[in-house]
Order: sequence, then structure tokens, then C-alpha cells
Amino acid sequence: MNNNLDRLRVVLVGTRNPLNIGAAARALSNFGVRQLRLVRPYDVAFQEARSAVGAADLLANSKVYKTVAEAVADCALVVGTTAAGRRELHHELRRLEVGARAIRKQLASTPVALLFGSEKVGLSNDDMSHCHWLMRIPARDEHGSMNLGQAVAVCLYELVRSGKIGSAKTGPAHAAAGDIERLTTLLLKVLGASGYVKPRAAAATEEKLRRMIRRMNLNDADAELWLGMVRQIAWKLDLTKSSAQGDA
Amino acid sequence: MNNNLDRLRVVLVGTRNPLNIGAAARALSNFGVRQLRLVRPYDVAFQEARSAVGAADLLANSKVYKTVAEAVADCALVVGTTAAGRRELHHELRRLEVGARAIRKQLASTPVALLFGSEKVGLSNDDMSHCHWLMRIPARDEHGSMNLGQAVAVCLYELVRSGKIGSAKTGPAHAAAGDIERLTTLLLKVLGASGYVKPRAAAATEEKLRRMIRRMNLNDADAELWLGMVRQIAWKLDLTKSSAQGDA
Repeated sequence: MNNNLDRLRVVLVGTRNPLNIGAAARALSNFGVRQLRLVRPYDVAFQEARSAVGAADLLANSKVYKTVAEAVADCALVVGTTAAGRRELHHELRRLEVGARAIRKQLASTPVALLFGSEKVGLSNDDMSHCHWLMRIPARDEHGSMNLGQAVAVCLYELVRSGKIGSAKTGPAHAAAGDIERLTTLLLKVLGASGYVKPRAAAATEEKLRRMIRRMNLNDADAELWLGMVRQIAWKLDLTKSSAQGDA
Repeated sequence: MNNNLDRLRVVLVGTRNPLNIGAAARALSNFGVRQLRLVRPYDVAFQEARSAVGAADLLANSKVYKTVAEAVADCALVVGTTAAGRRELHHELRRLEVGARAIRKQLASTPVALLFGSEKVGLSNDDMSHCHWLMRIPARDEHGSMNLGQAVAVCLYELVRSGKIGSAKTGPAHAAAGDIERLTTLLLKVLGASGYVKPRAAAATEEKLRRMIRRMNLNDADAELWLGMVRQIAWKLDLTKSSAQGDA
């Protein structure tokens, strides 16, 4: 987890519902952000918010401020969030993906404040006047207003989201070609005995089956599983007295 | 907003708290996803969830299913979400950023299901056995368990995040989950009759088999091929007089 996130302060302004404060605290904890600040929370019972699963400490350590100015005093960059479209904005508005890049850059050297307004009306013009610019989550124009806890989670996710992606998925080892071929042969025998393979089309069916089994990209364990299953079916069909067992 | 998201089905399995269902519905609406499906919700009062601000219609149109299999039957790709680290996983696990790319690609042509487990325990092994792979939000190891509504919001955000969507090279279509389930069921019947499935381990074998078949990533044509083969074996084993034919 990125240590620079220690420098991020999430500031909730005028939040009404203690559950939302708890949910925000949980998101901070999930993504490794430590400082939650509250400006004029509507309900002072917020510290008991049961929705702060796993983030009780963080909530207990949150600080309450009377003004936005005090809450962001130590921050070199102050960014407000908004559902946009709601009203004329006097600020530059950046999409979350773009804004998050700038925030990450700033966090390398100084604290940054990220402001979220109240559930009903968002940030006021006065609150926004403390912001360098605004940021919006790319939600639908028709329903851009997000739940507060969800908006916090999405913003923090974008901040921790890695630009460079480790696309290297290292799965279990692929099965050896020899095992795959044994499986193919045995399955063909079972299908022959079941009447699935028509003698006239045998060669074509065999090719089709071989290709398909390769497409399955079986790993070691799966190939063994399949071999075990097909062997058992072969046994049930009384094929093991012939060379099936030997093949497998 | 991207129209391909019409093809996404968000499936909540065993959700306990109606508020979370409402919050999930709101996130769907925010990001332009229309289909919410519920498997065995704990509280049937969910449709009154007041947390679904702006998403009452979506919630009213959500469908309830008895099983995961039914809820994902029309989907060619089924992805489970997990807080990982919790237990040994039998599935490939992808980070959200990586998994979302694959989901977007698939949405260009077919429906995709995204599963979220219950608040307390997440998805069960049985639920996961219906998944092709699992996805995790990159939260802190020490506190990886996210609030359900927040997890849904973050996943959907990642899906709409990238501007370019569905630019994909489209390979052959993935088989629908319903066909894959039919194949699984019939193969289990064959294996039962062959003595491969031991009654005492039946449930574990079934899960293992279901996972393995999903890992094969069968396309439409291959699934049909497999069904044909297994049907023929079932016929040979005299299983078709029971309900095997009907199932298939």
C-alpha cells in the first residue's frame, strides 16, 4: 500500500447521517488512508457509527472542525468533489481519473485534502471557495448523485489504483502434452464404444476432439482429474480389459 | 454511458441487510447498469430499502432467484468477487483493474454476471463453483473486507472508468452458463453411474467438477460438442431412461 496516502486528509463537510460517516471511515481503512476530518457534522453521535466495521479506531481518532479553513489548514492542495451538472461551477472540473493523478503527484511531497459535501446539497459555494479545483466521478448524467460512503470509496480506490498493471497472471502449470494425448486417446476409445464416433468420420472426429482438448488449456491437476474420470467411465463400459488401462 | 453495460447482471447472493441492497441498486443506477438479481436475500423487505435513492425503479424490477445457477443462466461469463486472503481459493484471482478489462471485452458480445456474497461470509465455495474466475478490489491486506454497497460501487466504477470500451477482438462466443450447467449435471450423472463419485464425497466432487468445467472456458460450439459426447455416453450407460435426456 502506498505510504503517501498518509498525507491524504478526507474531509466530510456537514454530513448528516452517522452511518455515512462510519461507511466513509471504513473505506479509508480499506484503502490505507488514516486521517478523517469532520466539519460541522450534523449528528455528534457519529463516533458510535456501527457502519465503521473494522475502522473504529480511525473513527475515534477523527477530528472535528468548525470551518473548512481550519480543516484544510495544513494542506497544500484542496480538492472538492461534486456530482456536477447541479449548478454553475466556478471551478475547474476534472474527471476522477485525471484529478487522481494530480493528487497522487502532490501527495509525494505535501498533505492534500479531499472534500465531500453533505448528502443533500453537497459542498456549498463557500466550501468550494477553499478548493483549488473540483473532481467528479463519471456517473450517469441522469443520476450523478452518489451515496456519500460509496463516493468516498470510489475516490480512494482511484487513488490507490495502480496505473501499471501486473497483467502477469501466473496460473498452475500447463499439463504436459503426453498427458493430454493420453486423455484424448482414452476419451476417443470411450466415445467409440458409446457409438459416438462413426467409423466413416473417425479421423475427422479425432482431429476435432484433439483440437478441442488443447483449447481447454488444462493444467496439471485438471488433466489428472479428467484422466481419472474418463478411466472410470472406460472401466464401467468394460473397456479396461482391452488396452485402455495400459494407454492411460 | 456505455450501452454494453446493459448486458451486465449484478448478482447479490444471500445479502442480509436491505440497506445494502438499496445501496447496491443506487450504484447500479449511478453507473448505468440495469439488471440487479438477488439470490436468496435474507430479508424479503429489501424492496422497500430507503437507501436506494434514485433507484427505486431498478430495485422494483430486480429479480429474486433460488439458486446461483438460475441467476446466471443467461451469462457467458460469471465472475465472483472476494476479499481474498480469507481462505484458500481454488480459482484464478485477478485484480479488479485486470478483471474489469476482461469483463468489458466480454460485454461487447454477451451477458456477464458479477457476483457479490453476503456481508458476513462472502461467496461460499458452492457459489464460487459457478464462477469462471474471481476478482478482488486492491484494498489493504489488513482490512480487505469492504462494505457491500461500496464494493459494488467500486467495481462498477472500474467498469465504466476507461473511456474505450469493447474495442475488443471478439473470439468465438462463450457458452451460456445454462448450457455449462447442463453439461456439468449430465457428466455428474455419468460419473455417478460409473462409480467415480463416492456418495460421501458427492458434494465436494460436484464443486470440484463445476469449477473445473468453468475453467475450461468453453465456447458455444465446444460446449455443444461436449454435451453431445456426454449424452452419448449416458445413453450407452443406460442412463437416458431416467431424467438424463430431460436434463440435457
